[in-house]
Amino acid sequence: MVMAHEDQGKATPVLIVGSVALDSVRTPFGEVAEALGGAASYASVAASFFASPRVVGVVGEDFPDRHVAALAERGVDLAGLQHSTGRTFRWTGYYEYDLNQAHTVSTELNVFASFRPELPESYQGTPYVFLANIDPELQLYVLDQVRRPRLAACDTMNYWIESARDKVLKVLARVDIALMNDAEVRQLTGESNLIAAARRVLEYGPGVVIVKKGEHGAVMLSADSYFTAPAYPLQEVRDPTGAGDTFAGALMGYLARSGECGDGDLRRAVILGSVLASFTVEDFSLRRLFRLSPQEIKERYEEMARITRFDSL
Amino acid sequence: MVMAHEDQGKATPVLIVGSVALDSVRTPFGEVAEALGGAASYASVAASFFASPRVVGVVGEDFPDRHVAALAERGVDLAGLQHSTGRTFRWTGYYEYDLNQAHTVSTELNVFASFRPELPESYQGTPYVFLANIDPELQLYVLDQVRRPRLAACDTMNYWIESARDKVLKVLARVDIALMNDAEVRQLTGESNLIAAARRVLEYGPGVVIVKKGEHGAVMLSADSYFTAPAYPLQEVRDPTGAGDTFAGALMGYLARSGECGDGDLRRAVILGSVLASFTVEDFSLRRLFRLSPQEIKERYEEMARITRFDSL
Repeated sequence: MVMAHEDQGKATPVLIVGSVALDSVRTPFGEVAEALGGAASYASVAASFFASPRVVGVVGEDFPDRHVAALAERGVDLAGLQHSTGRTFRWTGYYEYDLNQAHTVSTELNVFASFRPELPESYQGTPYVFLANIDPELQLYVLDQVRRPRLAACDTMNYWIESARDKVLKVLARVDIALMNDAEVRQLTGESNLIAAARRVLEYGPGVVIVKKGEHGAVMLSADSYFTAPAYPLQEVRDPTGAGDTFAGALMGYLARSGECGDGDLRRAVILGSVLASFTVEDFSLRRLFRLSPQEIKERYEEMARITRFDSL
Repeated sequence: MVMAHEDQGKATPVLIVGSVALDSVRTPFGEVAEALGGAASYASVAASFFASPRVVGVVGEDFPDRHVAALAERGVDLAGLQHSTGRTFRWTGYYEYDLNQAHTVSTELNVFASFRPELPESYQGTPYVFLANIDPELQLYVLDQVRRPRLAACDTMNYWIESARDKVLKVLARVDIALMNDAEVRQLTGESNLIAAARRVLEYGPGVVIVKKGEHGAVMLSADSYFTAPAYPLQEVRDPTGAGDTFAGALMGYLARSGECGDGDLRRAVILGSVLASFTVEDFSLRRLFRLSPQEIKERYEEMARITRFDSL
């Protein structure tokens, strides 16, 4: 099911709206300065292994041509990437030995501060839509522009849950899949039990809730199904940045490729999300994704089956 | 594979050494005072669904006869339960809405302070041995008394890792299975990556390491296998006390019942550990275990298969 590079032209398009950034990250295992980052970058490259990603985002005048070239090389459609006057969005942060917690040193919104996601005419009929973590107001604005997508998914974060809860709920009411991490699900619902919290999110509208739990994997709930996926077991994690966005991109890419979104398709998509995320965190920025092969994806997928398998009594 | 009650006489014996206590516990969902508790109580009742548990522990003069009767009713052999002059070990604690963290109000060791686990002659050839969390010095003392058990497993805790690390390592060198929680594995090895930490524990001696992660399930590692089991998804957890001990007891009970300890047996044992633990936390003390049926165990086991299953690509 993983696509060969030369097939991308015919692949199903997936719209991805989110940040494109320059990240400066330090972890106990190294550091990078002004490397390619941002949710839309990770999600679109992850999706590119299965489908044809279309990005809507914004960069400044200082955004290196080589990053544009690298994304284009992966088959990412950049017609919706706005080039604005000013500097590109920058995030500077670090992780301690406990890689579960990102520490932000600085966030410079720059051109992202006045970002309005305007969809080119060619994007408006895209059947698969992923709204990465941006202002829920802008997520709604994107949903207003797309014509009845087959499947829409959103991510969000603690900042928006706190400052714009009503808008977050409006977005949730209009998407099919909600992707959030465990802390966000608890924060949004006020439920400490994760299963109860995820069930509550279903009541807000989406048919499917996927809770990302970092090293503990992910769980997916719908009205009549519950699925739990482990994280791929890695002994070395160099930089966890982008894992969640990679997960979402691979998930949406696979669903677009599959053309179905039954329970079995969703489960395979979650496993692929975990697999792709496991590659992202092996190196800084998108380095590992850029040198990833379909064969490697397949092998880790099969390994995921081996590590979860057990016989009946 | 779950045993009918009337078959327990013929079942394989499992030796369980640990605390028998009176617990006073408060959670947001209720409270109990001086209820039956202690690692050996939970582990032996969990094991009793599969095998014939033999307990070594100590209680004081104040230990209620009804608790002895309840354990005996589950087929637990109490020949090794010492009755000492003084008061029974008592633990008082509470949990906040985040049930992952126990808060200790008081620990009264009482008769447990001078506990020496003396094995009755009839226990010394027990083929399956579980050393619950007690002073590693005493765990070694038990291992000195048993004659070449087929399988020995141990648990431990942060207190012993800090105060008696050398002794903990000596125990690990002499058991087949190490059961610990994620924080303890990290603490013992100084490794923040859980997989790397668990691999390190394998170097200390045991052929198998099982890391209990509470609501995130468990992972099992050996030299040539990795297995990950989710927690059974519960929307209501009333009291997490005893979950880990229940897990260990069910695991050892099942392995005794199976008579094998290949990778497939170990995987089924881990799933049963998670399943039994999921019942324990549904009510205070051992209440849920005491009213648990083999049919209920089977149903949750099958549910565990459903929630982890996914097809190949």
